[in-house]
Amino acid sequence: MSNPQKTPGIMSSHSTTVKPVPVIENGVNSDTVPYSDGELLQKVLDIVKKEKLYGKIEDDKSVVDFKHPEELRKLLDLTMCREGCQSRAEVDEVLERVVRHSVRTQHPHFYNQLYGGIDEVGLAGAWILEALNTNQHTYEVGPALVITEFCVIEQMVKLFGWTDGGDGIFCPGGSIANMYSMVLARHKLNPAFKRTGMTANDSPLVIFTSDQSHYSISKGAFWLGFGLDNVVPVASDDQGIMHGAALRDAVRKAREEGKKPFYVNATAGTTVFGAYDNFNEIADVCKEEGLWMHVDACWGGAVVLSTKHKSLMDGSGRADSISWNPHKMLCAPLQCSMFLTKHRGLLHEANCVGATYLFQQDKFYDVSYDTGDKSIQCGRKGDALKLWLMFKIHGMDVIELRINAAFEASKYLESEVKRREGFELVREGLQCTNVCFWYIPPALRGHTRTPQWWQMLHKVAPLIKERLVLEGTLLIGYQPMTGKNLVNFFRMINTSFPVPTQAHMNFVLDEIERRGQDIEVQSLES
Amino acid sequence: MSNPQKTPGIMSSHSTTVKPVPVIENGVNSDTVPYSDGELLQKVLDIVKKEKLYGKIEDDKSVVDFKHPEELRKLLDLTMCREGCQSRAEVDEVLERVVRHSVRTQHPHFYNQLYGGIDEVGLAGAWILEALNTNQHTYEVGPALVITEFCVIEQMVKLFGWTDGGDGIFCPGGSIANMYSMVLARHKLNPAFKRTGMTANDSPLVIFTSDQSHYSISKGAFWLGFGLDNVVPVASDDQGIMHGAALRDAVRKAREEGKKPFYVNATAGTTVFGAYDNFNEIADVCKEEGLWMHVDACWGGAVVLSTKHKSLMDGSGRADSISWNPHKMLCAPLQCSMFLTKHRGLLHEANCVGATYLFQQDKFYDVSYDTGDKSIQCGRKGDALKLWLMFKIHGMDVIELRINAAFEASKYLESEVKRREGFELVREGLQCTNVCFWYIPPALRGHTRTPQWWQMLHKVAPLIKERLVLEGTLLIGYQPMTGKNLVNFFRMINTSFPVPTQAHMNFVLDEIERRGQDIEVQSLES
Repeated sequence: MSNPQKTPGIMSSHSTTVKPVPVIENGVNSDTVPYSDGELLQKVLDIVKKEKLYGKIEDDKSVVDFKHPEELRKLLDLTMCREGCQSRAEVDEVLERVVRHSVRTQHPHFYNQLYGGIDEVGLAGAWILEALNTNQHTYEVGPALVITEFCVIEQMVKLFGWTDGGDGIFCPGGSIANMYSMVLARHKLNPAFKRTGMTANDSPLVIFTSDQSHYSISKGAFWLGFGLDNVVPVASDDQGIMHGAALRDAVRKAREEGKKPFYVNATAGTTVFGAYDNFNEIADVCKEEGLWMHVDACWGGAVVLSTKHKSLMDGSGRADSISWNPHKMLCAPLQCSMFLTKHRGLLHEANCVGATYLFQQDKFYDVSYDTGDKSIQCGRKGDALKLWLMFKIHGMDVIELRINAAFEASKYLESEVKRREGFELVREGLQCTNVCFWYIPPALRGHTRTPQWWQMLHKVAPLIKERLVLEGTLLIGYQPMTGKNLVNFFRMINTSFPVPTQAHMNFVLDEIERRGQDIEVQSLES
Repeated sequence: MSNPQKTPGIMSSHSTTVKPVPVIENGVNSDTVPYSDGELLQKVLDIVKKEKLYGKIEDDKSVVDFKHPEELRKLLDLTMCREGCQSRAEVDEVLERVVRHSVRTQHPHFYNQLYGGIDEVGLAGAWILEALNTNQHTYEVGPALVITEFCVIEQMVKLFGWTDGGDGIFCPGGSIANMYSMVLARHKLNPAFKRTGMTANDSPLVIFTSDQSHYSISKGAFWLGFGLDNVVPVASDDQGIMHGAALRDAVRKAREEGKKPFYVNATAGTTVFGAYDNFNEIADVCKEEGLWMHVDACWGGAVVLSTKHKSLMDGSGRADSISWNPHKMLCAPLQCSMFLTKHRGLLHEANCVGATYLFQQDKFYDVSYDTGDKSIQCGRKGDALKLWLMFKIHGMDVIELRINAAFEASKYLESEVKRREGFELVREGLQCTNVCFWYIPPALRGHTRTPQWWQMLHKVAPLIKERLVLEGTLLIGYQPMTGKNLVNFFRMINTSFPVPTQAHMNFVLDEIERRGQDIEVQSLES
């Protein structure tokens, strides 16, 4: 797809150009983009509207038009030239190609991750944020962003149950939010670590987290110098729930081994099963043992906005810190992720270094609004704005109704999985919107479930997934669970927008059946 | 500004509503946003066009309409209700208020940070990225994003001088990019740290960085468990440049103290002076001593795109890793930040944990394109797309001409500072586009420069800054530099878009003079 008339590559700094290079006249460069006065942004809007990349995407569009990587490299025409695009048509084609070869995560049939769907108000907020193009490290460059972040954090601190207030910060994703919790816990344990580092410590600091928790706890542990060996996986029950008793045993065992327990991560909505750990039991253990209690509510935290479902979070108000990603169930645009703590001042104390070129103390305004030194980032996006606009413009009732509808749809799906022949729940007893199930093709039904049978079933989900992706009709996740000795199964999740319906749920099961019913035993034998 | 007719707050979950709550009919919620079919996004575009938040903003708009935090809290009307906005006019007002009370970082008179100005192609890319609303942890959800990231990284690896290839990843800002370098250096030194953590180490690992380097090196050091005490500031010369000799001395001294040197951060374009460390000398020391060499080129790295200025980066090809933020000098939208390393495979090795629900190895496509396990983030934005579009659509010549123009403008400014009465350079000998200078009001001129005199001059920059902000005509940074015993001075920087002109430079000096010339001695005495 490369154009031979152009000088290829950006490496040839002395390349011969086929037309005069753009000139800088009176210090202003000639308009090299063949668009003017916002026409380029209008073009983006036109593409977005045409492709319905917001709101309620049409069901008749496919979720993905899959191309293998090497083929896509050619289709995107990656060649970069010294001269750039020479016409509107060329520019249009570049932009359209990117969208054409992207996945429609907005599509009601996209269930591949714990996100999917985009709220139009949130997207409007994201576009404004991008156009404002500023950071919120200081009030002087991001006043409205700083204020709306304060506002959202104040509200969420209350909703998560900290009646005496708290503090928080928006982060680039839940993994980094979880890292904040470990850093704060370490600082609370011993502020000297900030100066001395971990080497000065006698016995290893130990992190406890359920065997169902997100992998970011492990990643945070080795990044921050704790090490993977000091992350103790606590056994969860059959539903994936961590209980106080198992945690208590694990903590005592670690103490006996001469290690120093300091931090527990509980999960609100585990990645696969959607389990909510027993926060009250865990809080009891943390109190007894003097441990920091963090709740990774990145996926399941949205229930605090629903009167009907908020009891799932009972006990979260006893935690020291919480992470929550509104870009997941709430369908705020990626990324929208917050870290919250009940310990006011600790974020600043644990993270500040007081750079004089940025956080001057002789400014004429209240510098307590310069929140950048609470952060590990220097530049930081004003992601709170997107959520604030959703709350403000939609109102909280709409958000709540959507969440409730997502749970309703999952409940319906669960009942259908139980009812329909060939479908089988991995676990009964839905907590979050996750529904985990196997599809058993007719060829495998009615057989004794030998280890060989399970190994054949293990191959069914990847095979169906491949067919669905290549056809582009449905994107859904699957995985095994080695710890619980479970072979590959589908994980269906519902986010809250576009609001999932019973028809959508039926479509999922119908599609899996349609693409899986002809699977023969031969194709599953290795 | 709160509307008494509405039920305020989101806390009252059983509030009485003044109109029926929106209903979910057949699983689809009624359209509560009083816009349909993309009209909300059209509204955003209208605001952005009206306010010229892209391209060449009009000079007659102010840079900021400053309000103090408490006043802004009222003006933004932070109240959140259960019912949300009831009319288009209300929605419009919410969106317009946010923009009205934001800083125009796109304005040619915004020089407050090391960013400012936004490239329209980059913004188009940002809007597409937001609308696509996906991650790039796996190829299956972000195919075009994964491929364009590969492409940009391949190109930049070559431009920074690694002829044998390398690897890289886009990050949420330079601070986190710098953290990647420390994590990789630690892993290269001893891969066991990933399992054991830092506590298992005998002697503290030491980081060397110039006394002019960015504060993120310190933040990274305590986050990652090295500790602030193990960050050795290396004395820079008068221009702010770190040389091999000073580094060598510092490394030997640390070894004598029983510490273990392992990592050196060199800077390409320091935050205040814009100095480029002597990379070849530093590379020699790192080779002799067996240390990881990182170059923080977040600000100054853009020069590799300019034939005229790329020699400033001489020796960077000998580094182990480099950070660069195209959202700074290149005016790609925030955030656009990359970490690069010459060690292929090390990013994955140092960071992987192999989550089975996300990085399934039994997929039907080449899973080497699932790059998410190289990352500390789980969800990760496709920021490379913005830069790729800028390179592709503008062409590299335009980018180069803009960079050259930014340097030209700074050179002109430096000569004007030298020429004009009352202005004084803090340091002569411009390397990057940073020009640091004092303005000495007439009342302070011609006096002996006693410590008292310097203390009075210390107060001049903050005072002028306050006046400029309140008038909204110019945003420029100032700071003291305690290490070099320098009182508050202005730091002027130029980014490459909108292309800075001599007229813009004259405006900066004129404005400072206009707002500073009447400063009396009395107002500077404490």
